[in-house]
Amino acid sequence: MGPRDGLQNEDVLVSTADKIELVARSVAAGITRIEAVSFVHPGRVPQMADAEAVMAGVPRSEGVSYIGLVLNRRGLDRALAAGVDEVNVVVVATDTFSVKNQGVTTDRMLEVWDEIAAATPIRKSVTIAASFGCPFEGETPPERVAEIARRAAAAGASEIALADTIGVGVPAQVRDLTRRVRAAAPGIPLRFHFHNTRNTGYANALAAVEEGVTVLDAATGGFGGCPFAPAATGNIATEDLLYALHRSGARTGVSEEVVAAAGTWLGGVLGKPAPALLGRAGGFPSERTS
Amino acid sequence: MGPRDGLQNEDVLVSTADKIELVARSVAAGITRIEAVSFVHPGRVPQMADAEAVMAGVPRSEGVSYIGLVLNRRGLDRALAAGVDEVNVVVVATDTFSVKNQGVTTDRMLEVWDEIAAATPIRKSVTIAASFGCPFEGETPPERVAEIARRAAAAGASEIALADTIGVGVPAQVRDLTRRVRAAAPGIPLRFHFHNTRNTGYANALAAVEEGVTVLDAATGGFGGCPFAPAATGNIATEDLLYALHRSGARTGVSEEVVAAAGTWLGGVLGKPAPALLGRAGGFPSERTS
Repeated sequence: MGPRDGLQNEDVLVSTADKIELVARSVAAGITRIEAVSFVHPGRVPQMADAEAVMAGVPRSEGVSYIGLVLNRRGLDRALAAGVDEVNVVVVATDTFSVKNQGVTTDRMLEVWDEIAAATPIRKSVTIAASFGCPFEGETPPERVAEIARRAAAAGASEIALADTIGVGVPAQVRDLTRRVRAAAPGIPLRFHFHNTRNTGYANALAAVEEGVTVLDAATGGFGGCPFAPAATGNIATEDLLYALHRSGARTGVSEEVVAAAGTWLGGVLGKPAPALLGRAGGFPSERTS
Repeated sequence: MGPRDGLQNEDVLVSTADKIELVARSVAAGITRIEAVSFVHPGRVPQMADAEAVMAGVPRSEGVSYIGLVLNRRGLDRALAAGVDEVNVVVVATDTFSVKNQGVTTDRMLEVWDEIAAATPIRKSVTIAASFGCPFEGETPPERVAEIARRAAAAGASEIALADTIGVGVPAQVRDLTRRVRAAAPGIPLRFHFHNTRNTGYANALAAVEEGVTVLDAATGGFGGCPFAPAATGNIATEDLLYALHRSGARTGVSEEVVAAAGTWLGGVLGKPAPALLGRAGGFPSERTS
């Protein structure tokens, strides 16, 4: 989700052409599912104002699907018109943050989700934001996350994602939430979304993989953050996640080198070094006995 | 080991007084075992040239023990004269790196270890460097790490540490090496040493804890690196490790806030921001419902 969550909090307005290049580099690396844009009010998130233009320019390869984030019926209509393959709806688990982020309480947003779900003819996932903690309310009750998951599933979610929006989670929470959400929404695939704000993001991602989760959000270069959460910082970086997965024996079909190069390139576009470390450190050293 | 591995690769020569303050801040935070200095040739590691002066100035509290790194008999004599409570001897697992780091092959260093061990009247640990990979030889055979651990134990090591000197390891390796070294050196306590060079350090640390390991190296602020390994970067940061442990339910007796403040202070001393994230992001948010 580099083109969406990776960019939305950046002060530098990235050109439509550069956003399309970021997507194209991701496709070239072997990534087959990309959250490319969000269809939210351009006054609220100016970086995403060109969502339609981005979607018109991304490479349409066989087997690559594009996700658009939507928060209401109007966003859904825009997303469908722009030709996304999936929509992703965010429901924030705590009321204070939900109101600040999207102007409605959690329960009201679940009603909006019901309306969106009923009107969506394509794949639709729900991302439960602040599942691991809230910048305003502190602890997020895991029972509340499970209940939101249950309601997401009841309206037909294709997938449920648990997001550590502010990067406070630890692996023990990953395992606990996985168990609870699987019980509350049986049979619905799980996805996780981690930020590395306090250096726990990669440990959380690997813990999710150990729990059998096969879908993880990440952003090229590790950029990102939430405009409406104080001190929120970058997503886990796709290239660093790939390094850890590959060295753990996983096969992803994605080139960590191509993503790392894209992360370094994106740092140039944004005028600051990528939080990702692989582009600086290089991959696992090859043998060069002297 | 912030005062030792955290500082030894920094270009800015830190004053003896600031090194003593770093140690004192660590003690004030509740840390009870500190690798404060190394007794190596000052021409090789200039940052450690004032080891005796540092040891003369550190607070001598009940229950706090100080470790000095030594690589030969002369270093041991200096360490004992300076009044350290323990010595730590580094054996590099691969010959190419061993020769570059300390001028001898691994087998020769194991003979040096035998000599040091026989002459050491206090606690003595062996740290096996490059246990997870070598900057020059690539893969480090885990069988070789286990064999070095066996020889370390045979000469009376109080503790064996496995070091990911260049930050290439992943949790699967942590678990594999834990099993192998426990079999090769039964009954000897294990310690791990991780660098976060490719964003796997904290995942590795938490994997070690899950394996029952109770001693982990870390450096205040996450500074550090090896002068003789290309692209080696910081140790895992003590404050970020504490955050993850505390949020996982562990009790350490160490204040993450005091360490985080020390990391920020140390960044000022070194003239660059600490790699640690807790000092920037803050701890887990307290409830402040608006």
